Parts: sequence; C-alpha cells; structure tokens
Amino acid sequence: MNKKKTNTYLMCLLILTLSISTSSIQAQEHPKLILTKAGVEKIRAELGKVPLFDASLEQLKKEVDAEIALGIDTPVPKDYSGGYTHARHKKNWIVLQKAGVLFQILEDEEYAIYVRDMLLQYAELYPTLPAHPKTRSYARGKLFWQCLNDSNWLVYVSQAYDCVYDFLTKKERKNLEENLFRPFADWISVKNPQFYNRVHNHSTWGNAAVGMIGLVMGDDELVDRALYGLKNAPVNTGEKDNDGGFIYSEDGKAGFLANLDEPFSPDGYYTEGPYYQRYAMYPFLIFAEGLENVKPELKILEYKDGVLLKAVNALLNLSDADGEFFPLNDGQKGMSIYTSSLVSAVDIAYHHGGNNPQLLSIAKEQGKVLLDDSGLAVAIGLRDGEATPFEKKSINLSDGPKGEQGGVGILRYGNEDLTLVFKYAAQGLSHGHYDKLSYSFFEKGDEVLQDYGLSRFVNIEQKGGGNYLKENKSWAKQTIAHNTLVQNETSHFKGKYEIGSKHHSELYFFDESQSEVQVVSAKESNAYPGTEMHRTIALIKGYGFEKPFLLDILKVNSDSTNQYDLPFYFMGQVIQTNFEYKTPKELYPLGKKHGYQHLWMEGLGKASEDNSKFSWMNERRFYTLTTITTTADEMRFVRIGANDPEFNLRRDAGLILRRKDTQHTTFVSVLESHGSYSPVSEFAVNSKSNIASVNMVHDGTKYTALAIEDLRGEKHLFILSNKDASNSSKHKLNINGNDYSWSGPYYFK
Amino acid sequence: MNKKKTNTYLMCLLILTLSISTSSIQAQEHPKLILTKAGVEKIRAELGKVPLFDASLEQLKKEVDAEIALGIDTPVPKDYSGGYTHARHKKNWIVLQKAGVLFQILEDEEYAIYVRDMLLQYAELYPTLPAHPKTRSYARGKLFWQCLNDSNWLVYVSQAYDCVYDFLTKKERKNLEENLFRPFADWISVKNPQFYNRVHNHSTWGNAAVGMIGLVMGDDELVDRALYGLKNAPVNTGEKDNDGGFIYSEDGKAGFLANLDEPFSPDGYYTEGPYYQRYAMYPFLIFAEGLENVKPELKILEYKDGVLLKAVNALLNLSDADGEFFPLNDGQKGMSIYTSSLVSAVDIAYHHGGNNPQLLSIAKEQGKVLLDDSGLAVAIGLRDGEATPFEKKSINLSDGPKGEQGGVGILRYGNEDLTLVFKYAAQGLSHGHYDKLSYSFFEKGDEVLQDYGLSRFVNIEQKGGGNYLKENKSWAKQTIAHNTLVQNETSHFKGKYEIGSKHHSELYFFDESQSEVQVVSAKESNAYPGTEMHRTIALIKGYGFEKPFLLDILKVNSDSTNQYDLPFYFMGQVIQTNFEYKTPKELYPLGKKHGYQHLWMEGLGKASEDNSKFSWMNERRFYTLTTITTTADEMRFVRIGANDPEFNLRRDAGLILRRKDTQHTTFVSVLESHGSYSPVSEFAVNSKSNIASVNMVHDGTKYTALAIEDLRGEKHLFILSNKDASNSSKHKLNINGNDYSWSGPYYFK
Repeated sequence: MNKKKTNTYLMCLLILTLSISTSSIQAQEHPKLILTKAGVEKIRAELGKVPLFDASLEQLKKEVDAEIALGIDTPVPKDYSGGYTHARHKKNWIVLQKAGVLFQILEDEEYAIYVRDMLLQYAELYPTLPAHPKTRSYARGKLFWQCLNDSNWLVYVSQAYDCVYDFLTKKERKNLEENLFRPFADWISVKNPQFYNRVHNHSTWGNAAVGMIGLVMGDDELVDRALYGLKNAPVNTGEKDNDGGFIYSEDGKAGFLANLDEPFSPDGYYTEGPYYQRYAMYPFLIFAEGLENVKPELKILEYKDGVLLKAVNALLNLSDADGEFFPLNDGQKGMSIYTSSLVSAVDIAYHHGGNNPQLLSIAKEQGKVLLDDSGLAVAIGLRDGEATPFEKKSINLSDGPKGEQGGVGILRYGNEDLTLVFKYAAQGLSHGHYDKLSYSFFEKGDEVLQDYGLSRFVNIEQKGGGNYLKENKSWAKQTIAHNTLVQNETSHFKGKYEIGSKHHSELYFFDESQSEVQVVSAKESNAYPGTEMHRTIALIKGYGFEKPFLLDILKVNSDSTNQYDLPFYFMGQVIQTNFEYKTPKELYPLGKKHGYQHLWMEGLGKASEDNSKFSWMNERRFYTLTTITTTADEMRFVRIGANDPEFNLRRDAGLILRRKDTQHTTFVSVLESHGSYSPVSEFAVNSKSNIASVNMVHDGTKYTALAIEDLRGEKHLFILSNKDASNSSKHKLNINGNDYSWSGPYYFK
Repeated sequence: MNKKKTNTYLMCLLILTLSISTSSIQAQEHPKLILTKAGVEKIRAELGKVPLFDASLEQLKKEVDAEIALGIDTPVPKDYSGGYTHARHKKNWIVLQKAGVLFQILEDEEYAIYVRDMLLQYAELYPTLPAHPKTRSYARGKLFWQCLNDSNWLVYVSQAYDCVYDFLTKKERKNLEENLFRPFADWISVKNPQFYNRVHNHSTWGNAAVGMIGLVMGDDELVDRALYGLKNAPVNTGEKDNDGGFIYSEDGKAGFLANLDEPFSPDGYYTEGPYYQRYAMYPFLIFAEGLENVKPELKILEYKDGVLLKAVNALLNLSDADGEFFPLNDGQKGMSIYTSSLVSAVDIAYHHGGNNPQLLSIAKEQGKVLLDDSGLAVAIGLRDGEATPFEKKSINLSDGPKGEQGGVGILRYGNEDLTLVFKYAAQGLSHGHYDKLSYSFFEKGDEVLQDYGLSRFVNIEQKGGGNYLKENKSWAKQTIAHNTLVQNETSHFKGKYEIGSKHHSELYFFDESQSEVQVVSAKESNAYPGTEMHRTIALIKGYGFEKPFLLDILKVNSDSTNQYDLPFYFMGQVIQTNFEYKTPKELYPLGKKHGYQHLWMEGLGKASEDNSKFSWMNERRFYTLTTITTTADEMRFVRIGANDPEFNLRRDAGLILRRKDTQHTTFVSVLESHGSYSPVSEFAVNSKSNIASVNMVHDGTKYTALAIEDLRGEKHLFILSNKDASNSSKHKLNINGNDYSWSGPYYFK
C-alpha cells in the first residue's frame, strides 16, 4: 500500500472512530437491526395492501409453518457441507431468521416460542462443542466444518434474536448471550484470527456476524471489532487458506471497513468476481443496513463514495441475459440475480439508494421481497407501477481498491443479444484464475465461447463433500482452461498465486460510445516475463451482416521464441472446417501439466493458408470463427476430461490454434453468429459464414490494420493504434497506397 | 402376405373401384381441393371475428408479402438439400400454396398473379430439365435431387393451382397442364416406379402428389394411379433404396390405399416411427381431405376403421411432455407436435373427426391453424372456449397392418412427470433400428436414458448434404446404440435388414390399469437365434419414494454361452458409484464393429457384490441406477465419438454392464429419479438413492421374484409369471417359506 492510500485509510478510520465515540446506542428498543419498531408498525398497517409483500409473507409463513410442524433439531455437528448436520444447522439459521420476522409482523407468539426454544437448545449445545470434528478447514467452526458457515449462522440468527429480544425474559437473554452468542462471536474472531482478520469474503461474513450480534446486544466492543478487526493479530505469515489464498495481508488491514476498501473497486467490482460478490453482498448489505438503522451517524452507505450501492449495480451488470452471473474466476454456473442475497441487495439498494425505478423490474422478476422496510418500499413501488426496465449496457468495471488494477469490460449489443465479457483484472484473491486477457462470449443467455467456471459441485456431498475438487486447481484455474494465450504450455505466472497476486493487466482503452463499433483493449506484460500481450476485441455491426461479429486482435511481442496456444472453447457441435484434420484412433492427453493433462486431443489439423474457418452449431444457431493462419499453424480439437478419475469435469470441446517457434506475432480472428436451425421446420437459415476474407493489411509497432471482406465484396477496415490510446491524438497511415487519417485509438470504416 | 389378408385387400379395392366408377367428378368449380367454394365464402364472412384464424392469416400474409417483394426465382436445379436451389424451390412450393390461399380469402389479384407468373416460369423451365444432376438418389427428381422432394412440391403446388384455376385463362391452364403438371406427375410415377410403387413414406408423397393434381385437373386416371399405384410395375427385385430398404414389396402392393393398409397398425402407429409418421401425415391427411372434398363417396376417412384419424391420436401420444416426438428408429430430436404437418393433422382430425375438444388445446399451443374450413372450425372452437386439456396417458400401440407385429408401449405417471417408452415393434422398414426390447425414459421433457435417434443434420448442407450420415448406419442403427441387450458384440439380426424385416417382438402383456404399478412386458426370440429375451418394465410408485421408480427385468435364456452387454445411456454427469473403477490414461474404442467402434472406453470397473449403484445428475435432478450384479460382472463407462472423423456424433455417455461366459441370466435394475439441485439456492435435496437393496428372491422358469427394500426398511415384492400372461390364471409361489398367491401375470405388494 502506498503512502497516499494509507493516509486515506487512516483518515477514514479516524472519522468513523470519532463518529462512534460521540454517538451512543440510540435505540435501545427492539427490533432495531433490520426490522425496526417504526418499520414494523408501517408493515402491519400495509398488510393486505401490497401484493408482492403479501405474497412473500405468505410464502415465508408456509415455509416456516412446515418447519415448525417438523419440530426442532439441533444435532451434534459431524458432517461436511451436503451432510445432514450441516444441512440441518443451515436450515435452522434460515428458519430462525424467518420465524423472527413472522413474529414481528404477525404478532403470533408461536413464532417467538419456536425461536426461543431453538436458541435455548443451541445455548445448551454450544458450550459442549469442541472444534468441528471435520478437519479440512484452515479455520474450523463449531456448528460447521468451517468458521465461514458459523458466521453465516450468526448473521441470520442475530436478526432472529433481535426480533424476539423483548419477548425473552432477562434471564433467557443472559443465558443466550453468555452461553451462545458471545462465545460464538469470540470463536469466529479472537479464536480464529486467521479467518477473521483478513480482507476476504470469509472475513466479511465473520465481521458482519460479530457486528450484528454486537448491535443487537448493544455491545460496542463487538461492533468495533467488526468494523476495524482484531487488534494485535498476526501479520504476513505467508500462511494460506484452503483455496490457496494468503491468510494475512501485508499491512494487517482487517475488519468490515477494510473489506469495503480493499476488494471493491470504485466502480463496485469485487475482485474475486461476481459469484463471490453475490455471496459477499448479503453480509455487506445486511450489516450495512443494521448499521444504518442502529448507527445512522456512521453513514455507512456513503462510505467510499457509496461503493456498496455501486456494487449492487455492478453485480447486476455482471450477469447474462438470463440473469446468470458470468463465471469469472471460481464461479458456479447457474448462480443468478434470483438468488436470495440479490433480493436483499436489490431491495436495500432501492430503499437506501434513491428509489431507482429500474431496480423494481429486477425485484419483479425475483418475485419476492425482503420482509422489512426495504422490501415493503419495493413492493409498494411495484404496486404503484413505478418499475422501468433494467437496462444492461456496455460497461467497464475497474478492479482494485482505487480502480487501478485492470478490470472487466463488457460489450453488449441490442437487448443483450450478444455479450462479450473481457477480463483484464487483478488476480482476484484466492478464487482467481490465471487467465489474463481472456474472454467469453454470450448470445442471449447461452454461452458461445465459454469460461469453464469452477470445478466444484457446491453442497453436493458425494462430490468431494461439496467442496472444491482437485480439478479446480489442476484444470479450472489454469490458463489453458480459458480463451486466452498460453505460452510454452505454461500457465500465466506459472500458475503461482504468489506471483499472480502481485500483478494485473492494464486497460488500454474502452469505447462503447458507438453502438455499432464497440471496443475494449488491454495489455498484459507480467503473465510471461519478457512477453507482452495486447488484446483488442471489437464488437462490430458490419453492413450486410445479420448480427455483429467479434474482431479479436491479439498482438504478442516477446524477447524469446515460443510456442503459443490460443484456445476457443466453443459450445456445441462441429459443423465444418475449411482445413484438413485427422481424428486419432486413440486419444491421448495433450500434455502433462498446467491443465494440458485434462485435454484429450480429438483432432489434429494443419491450418489453411490465409484464413482457417471453423463453423459449429449450438442452441439452434450457427457460428463461424475465421482466423488468420499460415500453413505452419496447427489446429487441435480438444475435449476436456482426460485424467479425470471421478468424472468431475464436463466433456466440453475446444479448438486450439498452435503457433510454434515464434517470437512476435499477431493473432486475428473474427467470430460470427449467424442464422438458425429449427428441428421443427427443419429449415437451416443463413448457415454459412458471411465473410470472404480477413486480411492483416498492416502490422507494425505503431499500427495494426485488418481488412474484412464479406461475400458480397463489401470491405471493412479496422486500424488499431498500438501505442497511443489517447482520444485526441491524430494518426495517419498509408496502406497499399491509400492514406487513412483519424483521431483516437482506432479507425473503422 | 397370407391369403386372408389378400382377400381383404382385394375387397377394399373392389369397393373403392366401384365407388369411383359410379361417381363422377362432382364439383367442377374451383377451389375444390382443400379450400372449397362454400368454405371460402364462410371464411370471408368470419374474417375479423375469429382471433386465431385472423392471426394465422396475418402471419401468412406477412410471409407471402415479403416473398413477393423479393421477386420470383426458379433457378436451374443443382444442389442437394441445404443448398440454394434446393432451398429456393422448397420455399417456392410453400409460398405458392400460401399465395393461392391468400388470393381466395382476400380476393386480392396480386397473389393470383404471383402464383400464375411463377407457375408459368416453371412451365418454361420444366420441359428443359433432365434428371437432377446430383446422382446420389435411387430416384432422382427434376427440381430436386430426389423424387421425394419433387412430390412434396406437387402436393403443395396442386393446392396453389386449384386456388388460381379460375383466375387463369384456358390457354394458361393448358400450357401448365401439358408442360408442367402432367409430365411432372409422370416423372414421379411412371418414370420412377421404384420410387412410386412402394409401401413407403416416399411413395405416399408421390401418390398424394399425383392424386391431388389429378383431382384439380379432373383427371380420373391420375387419381386412380394415386389410389392404386402403377399397373405392371416390377415386383420383388431385391433392389434397395438409399436407406437400405427394399424398393418393391413381395406382393406388388402400391398406391395410396396400400400405404394406408400396410404401414399403419389398427391403433394408428406408423411402422417407421413417429418422426416419419409426422412427415407422412401431411400427404396422408391433405390428400384425404382433398378426396373427402372432391370424392366424398370414397369415405376415405372411414377407411380401415378410421385409421387416419387414429393415427393423429397415436402420433400426439408419441411425444414427450414438451411435445417432442420420441426418437424411435431414425428420428431427429426436437421434431415436435408444433411442426406444420401436425397443424394440418390436428385441424383436419378435429374438423373431420367429430370435433374432439382435446385437440383444440393442442391447436392452441400450436398457435396457428390451417387457412381452410378445418382451420376455421378449430379457430372458432377455440374462440368459443371449447378446448379441454389433451390428456396423454399410458398407451400401448400395436405395430403391423393387423396389429400383430409387436408395438410400442408407453407408461406415463402423473402429468407426464415420468414417461417410459418401450419398443418391441417390427423393423420399421428402412428407417428401423436394431433395438428389440429397448427403452428410453423421460422426466417431463428431458431424457433420462436416451435413445440416440438418427445421425443426420436434416437440411444442413455442410453435414453430408443434409442427408443421412454414414454414422447413421455404423452407429445409430446398431443395437449397442440403444438401451437393450447385445449378445457377443453383435447387433440384433446381425444388423441385417433382410433378416430384421422378417421379424418382430411379441407383446407379453401391457397393464396400465393401476396408476401406481404399470407394467409392459415383451419377448424377443429372433434377434439372436437360440436366445430368448424377455423384458418386463414396471413403473412403480412405492411407499416412501418421492417419485415412481422403474423396475427393469430382462430374462435371457440361450442355448449357448455368450457375452451379454446391457447399456444405459444416461444423460448428465457422474455423481457417484458404489463400485470401484479405473479411468484409463489413454482412450481406445470398445470394439471394431456393430457400433462398438464408436465408443470410447472411459472407465472400467468391477461390479459390486449384490447391488451395483450408479448416480448421476441431469437438468438439476438426481438419478440412481441400482442393478443386481456379482463381482464377475464388469461396468464400463463409455463415451460416443470414436472413429468419428467429422464430429458427426454427440459426445454422450453410457454405462455398460457386461456379463461374460453366461448362458441363462436375468438382469434386474431399478432406476430412481430423486431430488433436485438448484444452482441458485445451492441446495441439494434428496440427492441419494432411497433404495437399500434389490434382491432376486426367486428366478425359475415359471416365476421371477424381486424384493426391493428402501432405506427405512419397507419392502416391496414383485413376482412375474414368466410363461402365462393370462389375466385369469391363478398362481401360487413359495418364497423363503412364505406363500404368495395371485391372479394374472404379476404380483406386487
């Protein structure tokens, strides 16, 4: 951390410390944390008048009533995630929180009694528990195999406790606080600093848990511990967690505010990626809402220029047309804006962030609201017809605490008809993949070129206890698992977290101002020391093309001679190539390490002179990749699944362009989506590429120029300024006797 | 053909010939074929009053107007299907028919002029054409590479001609009839008897084409040729078509009526399977409608006890919960009840078949109607709220002209929640697969155990001209591509059509009377001479099971010692096995022929003692197969795709249970669907098998008995009578000291 950063940080600390010192816990009445006394009164007054709220309430009541009918079970912990005791305690935290809410809204003591009885059972159980018997975690919980899940539990159960606080006798509260909540908060913090005192999504849960129970109990020491972390915890020991991330940061920063400072960029991008951002959003926002309610003087939602609210917007934009998050880094596919933490995020952002009517349309699709002041506001907004469509546009999201560590650029065309996701970010902490300048491409909600995502079956116990599988490291994180360049069959930064976490790519430029030609461009010079990669991707709606095509220019300069592999993980089935290839009689892995050991070599071809073309079909649409090659290039069809003794990997396909014995080179590819096929009408429409040729008409240090000609003879020219991305710079270039002059980083006609 | 059959056939011929002789072409006014003078008047009177009809009309008008704007093109034929000239002539036939209808309904001469001009252009082109330059077909057309497509053209264009008949001058009509329609009809019939004079879906198109133009032109000779086939055409030459089917039947039967007699069973099952049935339905029904309109005295819809209308019902029942046809034999997946030939079928069946209100709900889902009397009737029915849900139930459909050549049994549970499709049919002509006693299993519209379907990308020119690929024969038709028994790595009937087409399996019994226990059972003794297979599949809703499970009993008795392979082509990803297996470092094909050459061996395991269990996940649901094994059994994970030089095959998975050196044996498996997984909530519910054990407690000549115990210790017992399927027979069996007595083919408790 540079000096300037440290100063800002200290200043923030000072301001916040002052605010806390001068304030007192204002509202001693309960509930006060998420539900408030005043809010509950308003909710009760609106019951029966706000359809979505009423529906959410009814749904919740049904769930909780069914659970109450089943009776209370707080089993002695023994399982990993996916096992019974894990699932039961997880279910308990959910039902406790919901039952608390129902008690407040419906004033039916049955719910309070249920919460009380279960909490008392926990207060009896908890003091008898040693660390969880499963030993895999770097930070074992007591109810769960990892402190993370214990923290989840406390974040929810704090809310339940708040709801029944006044219903309980003083003696019951004393019992609960002494035997359950305080030792629980201590276990996940002081007893496990390696878990608690980090900048990491795990710690955010820990911080929020400790802070929320502190707010309910009126314990400022716990709230302080939540906001600022532990004092005197170890620093920079080099220890790593289960995911291979460093446990302690170099500067010892910790606590909720540090977790707001560090992983979020000023644009609200969370450095681990959207899958983990969605996971982290709940503790961030729910604790923030608690702080807003109990300690409004902290102005937590204004912290870092309102980063928490920006984060909600960033996260919504990090999803495809179906609302599923882009699986950047470790991300399980299918996770979407319909997950409950996004219901909280959207409701809280709406209520506390100026009632943005676009958020209402997301809430409508989610089909439920929080049963609190925020949710009520959303449901009222929807009832009153205030929703407007949520517009996802092209967006560039910086990474890094100050927005200076690369980022993610998203180019969109039409109503999310086509979406490019280009990653030039920082490592992404322990959940990061080694995939600088990689991209994935979507048509509507379908992957065209995929990012593999993670190798894990979350909460499916039969698959490695529901935890990360070893193929996550050996395959999913490796560079070859992504649509980006691999040099000499070695992952970026040699696949080493110690190196990768020190670097990030650099944005060259991002220009979404012309919807017909949108460009993102970035450079990477640390992934392979001595090699600079500069990738530029343009989404271009050319004349005479049915849909926009992608122009992908990857310029590589190296101080050595290397083998370069450029993979395209296409989804779907091979339709045609214009190059010859042979399919082997037996299949062998493509290599021995860095992920290559997981690829079967299904076909080996010699590239065409000039342009190699490859067409495939997916989801009833056709795609063609046209890439500039020479006959020295090799084309390899690969299939994921080698060295996969438990069938943990999906048998997806890829095409790898291999260029051997090369120092400087420029890879140029055009990806078209075209036409459609209907198995009902059996019509194949526009099933062939519309591109006659792609030619590199100039490739120098300063400029690279591509000519794209379509079948009707219409030509497009794209010239990239390689060294100067300034919008105001003027350029002039003669190509084949023609002069071209323009301003800014690129020319297109 | 036996003597009795021949007599019936001759009688039918006689009756029909008499009817024709005594009738005259009654209605010389046009239109009369599909649209009628009276019908058109009614339609005009209802315009603007029947929403679905109006919407269909508007949609049609938009399509045709766009085509008219593009201008007329009748290129000189040169391409296979998928190529331009093919697609253009195909588009032309569609637009001609539609433009004719628009002229009649809207009385706008622009449409008549368009039809006239294009027809005149064809009348100029046609006489200049030799046989189509592409030579692959056993029966080349002129506009298209095969007579089949020329016939398609004429079936549609006859309707267009009928619509503009009165608009044309006499001279124009003479020109068209002499230069286009009559030589066209002759080419596809007298000039190509090998195409026209068969019992085959190709010929049905040919017959309908000749008959329909005959009806329009008032030419009884052509109508006769359509109904009864060519006289004096060759018989039984042993010649085969492109699909390997015999060209001439042994008895020389041909013509439309023969095509109604032979391939349809009395239940309306079409022996080639639903994919081809759907294709054949259009010419069958549209020609029938034409005959009904022009020659009502024929009573064609009452022919063979109303088989045409029964066929519509059978076809609708041969679809999954999404309306997609089961891919029995050569069937392209995705073809569904939403295809246009089913719109015709449903509308015609409704209008001419007693206004069954269940058909209206299908028409509603189809979202369009024919623009004729039938379509109007359907649209009026829908407008008037008469639709009731179409209920697909368990159904047994016999195969063979008399229903005596096996069949297809479909067991359904709930609202198509689970569907078993069990095939014990005849060969299915040239589109048949060698898969006696095979089955596929669906959950809602998703395949759980798949039938591979065909290997062909219909109309995608890049894939083998859109025609059958060589892998259709080497893989898709072979027995190992199906969920049924393979003896000694050889397909049923050695994969020989000459043998297969002589045999069929025999129904043992079908009992859908109890929704909680539904059973289908059939025997096959010709697939492997000397070996009898008896397969019984029960769909059982057991106590304590979330959903019904499948009990699959396959009893094999042989006069020799063999190797038996029983594959399960599961869709989805491996979750867990209870048996050990090794995944090889390199992949080799499983065998050399009969489809084995297309399977990579991805894992080799030794089965468990007693019960081998295998779980997988698909479409967010869990499945477990529990099969009785001994440690001598082998389990092989396979993946389709070996020896597939053009990536024509899907990389789907299978598990093969191999039992070596065995003479008599009984395979017993239970397939459960259980639980669910949500990537949004990340909850895995009921992800494990509920079965503790499956035991064969008795297996003798007369009886086979299975005990199934669930995890809570509840037991089910299923006893099958192996030799006597009579419902009235009484049985008694002692198992482990307990006496069981019952009536009928099975006992279950």
